Amino acid sequence: MLAPAALRALDANDPLRDKRQEFILPEDTIYLDGNSLGPLSKRAQTRVASVVTQEWGDDLIASWNKHSWIDLPTRVGEKIAPLIGASPGQTVCCDSISINLYKLLGAALNLRADRSVVITQADNFPTDIYVADGLSRFLGDRKCRLKSVEAKDIIASLDETVAVLMLTQVNFRSGAVHDIEAITRRAHDAGVLVVWDLAHSAGALPLAMDDWAVDFAVGCGYKYLNGGPGAPAFVYVAERLQEDVSQPLSGWMGHAKPFAFSHDYMPGQGVQRFLTGTPNILSMASLDAALDIFADVSMPQIREKSIALGETFADCVNAKDALTELKLASPQDSQQRGSQLSYSHPQAFAIAQALIAHKVIVDFRAPDIVRFGFTPLYTSYTDVWQAVEKLAEVVRSKVYLQDKYQQRSKVT
Amino acid sequence: MLAPAALRALDANDPLRDKRQEFILPEDTIYLDGNSLGPLSKRAQTRVASVVTQEWGDDLIASWNKHSWIDLPTRVGEKIAPLIGASPGQTVCCDSISINLYKLLGAALNLRADRSVVITQADNFPTDIYVADGLSRFLGDRKCRLKSVEAKDIIASLDETVAVLMLTQVNFRSGAVHDIEAITRRAHDAGVLVVWDLAHSAGALPLAMDDWAVDFAVGCGYKYLNGGPGAPAFVYVAERLQEDVSQPLSGWMGHAKPFAFSHDYMPGQGVQRFLTGTPNILSMASLDAALDIFADVSMPQIREKSIALGETFADCVNAKDALTELKLASPQDSQQRGSQLSYSHPQAFAIAQALIAHKVIVDFRAPDIVRFGFTPLYTSYTDVWQAVEKLAEVVRSKVYLQDKYQQRSKVT
Repeated sequence: MLAPAALRALDANDPLRDKRQEFILPEDTIYLDGNSLGPLSKRAQTRVASVVTQEWGDDLIASWNKHSWIDLPTRVGEKIAPLIGASPGQTVCCDSISINLYKLLGAALNLRADRSVVITQADNFPTDIYVADGLSRFLGDRKCRLKSVEAKDIIASLDETVAVLMLTQVNFRSGAVHDIEAITRRAHDAGVLVVWDLAHSAGALPLAMDDWAVDFAVGCGYKYLNGGPGAPAFVYVAERLQEDVSQPLSGWMGHAKPFAFSHDYMPGQGVQRFLTGTPNILSMASLDAALDIFADVSMPQIREKSIALGETFADCVNAKDALTELKLASPQDSQQRGSQLSYSHPQAFAIAQALIAHKVIVDFRAPDIVRFGFTPLYTSYTDVWQAVEKLAEVVRSKVYLQDKYQQRSKVT
Repeated sequence: MLAPAALRALDANDPLRDKRQEFILPEDTIYLDGNSLGPLSKRAQTRVASVVTQEWGDDLIASWNKHSWIDLPTRVGEKIAPLIGASPGQTVCCDSISINLYKLLGAALNLRADRSVVITQADNFPTDIYVADGLSRFLGDRKCRLKSVEAKDIIASLDETVAVLMLTQVNFRSGAVHDIEAITRRAHDAGVLVVWDLAHSAGALPLAMDDWAVDFAVGCGYKYLNGGPGAPAFVYVAERLQEDVSQPLSGWMGHAKPFAFSHDYMPGQGVQRFLTGTPNILSMASLDAALDIFADVSMPQIREKSIALGETFADCVNAKDALTELKLASPQDSQQRGSQLSYSHPQAFAIAQALIAHKVIVDFRAPDIVRFGFTPLYTSYTDVWQAVEKLAEVVRSKVYLQDKYQQRSKVT
């Protein structure tokens, strides 16, 4: 375990250290929950104020042209594209992950009309499963049959009945990472299309949609991309599929000429046709501004620090006698996990609450996980060390047994 | 035609006159486009700043509980409910009109599985048609067949093959109003469910979802409700249908217990199950704040002034020789039109551009309509008179023939 002085030295030499100035974080708080909700940045704050007061307030409806509101879904998509290894013309920002998954599953089923099975992982994020389940109930078993399998059985499940495989790269509970390239290749060998959910990947891990021959992907705007609460999600559709693809949620923003107000739907160019309704300008502009923070950093650079932060955290935990009752629920190998560490404990909920009360913001994930997210743009090595100090104090003192830490809220 | 002095007297006696103070409108501008994008209000401006800086910035992830972000879709829905004549438990705020139409069409088809035809009106708003068309292409003709009919043929089209009738109450071009109660009754007589699009109705016309026995409705947050650009839409589902209804876009926010993270989808209580993904908090909070402006006014009061504004406008137009070349494209009877007046002219696009340059903000709607929206909360009788004065000047001078007014922008 590194001594605090050594951690301070790491911070001093951290090439990303100045990025913290981009963010407005409450004082004395260690925020290890950027994988749930990225924090406010100065850019987002300024931009939202300007969109509200100048663009909406002064320029009103003219802003659709004057401030290019109409291009925001494309512009934001193209800012996300380099973060996920996508060349231009394949990424748009819109709607939520749930809704975008529905579009992509529908699109994949349309392209594989002779097959009906949708495979997903049994411990995928619930909304992914709910969306596929809803689609399957809506279309009927003959057209869409959902099968949930264990991680180890994914490859074996890919046969000639399978239309689409839908997976999340980084497991929301454990942080375990899938090898997108290898799984996609195996899926393609079986004629299966793959929809990747990058919720816990985009902005955290180096990604290479194009090089890995990914078909479809969705991702989140409000976690590592710091777009703000409920910021819109994004969609990636590989160029090679765009000409033939159609998706079920066709709306006016996906039309080739939305303002021709024509009676017949004519899908827009390429990924444009994955847009549906009017974009949420306030939320999307906030994301647009926050993405500029990534302009001069590389994803490998972020990943390198993320791994170092995670390893520092794990080392500090391992060095504390009080913390032996926490069980690592993430892969041991830091290359095999996302930008988080999860530990299980029977009192995980109350421990998370007590930590939050002590200004270390973490997540509880049912049934028994405390989740620590590492966000290299604004988290220091010293933060990580301090977080473990507080964690050890909470666990050692059993302060979490107090009633106030045991009470469940609506959102956990 | 009333003299300017008489109009000033009407303004002085207008019971809604103080409401204008709620809004931040640019000086010297007459805004007759609140039916495209409602203006910024002081409440929305303050609220968005506070959500960004205090809630997101200071309280971060805790805001889902602390500031009840998680309840926003329901809370905003319940604020909209009285404006549409809905008792509690039937309205939620979420997503866009396009996406919500998809949910409701899916829900209606699920309830009428023995029928397949979806009827809509040939000149319905394009996105409504595109959504139904996309659904029909996705499900196939056997499950969903879209038929577009003329307004006069709607009732005659309702037979035992028809599952659902989807109509917009106020036509976006002409402003012609459907009688929701009468059409819904005739549809029910034929065993047909009805989905009403209230885009140009909510906040403009008195509505009575419950009393009119409406099945399903959607509406817009950014027009008469002033929620801001791309503010989320809303969904109404009649209580009597809620127990049996299911919708295709099932996501975690529509789950009975989203944070149990359970594998199986269990639909939430009632209209809650029409939620899908994570709500856009910035956009939704803006709408939430703007809705408070309606707290102490009644919809009949708004309608009364809206009709008076429209009649004043029409009288002023009729009194101008220069304006005989404009043809009324809205119903003559003000009871039969929404809160707008539309006029056709071969140079409608350029006239609209020239008017906007002269600070009368209106809409062009292809192919040949200039659309004037009347919004009683912030539009005065004097505004309306001045707008016609400027319109007459633009038309008489033919200033609209200048190149700069002929150039098309991306959004028209």
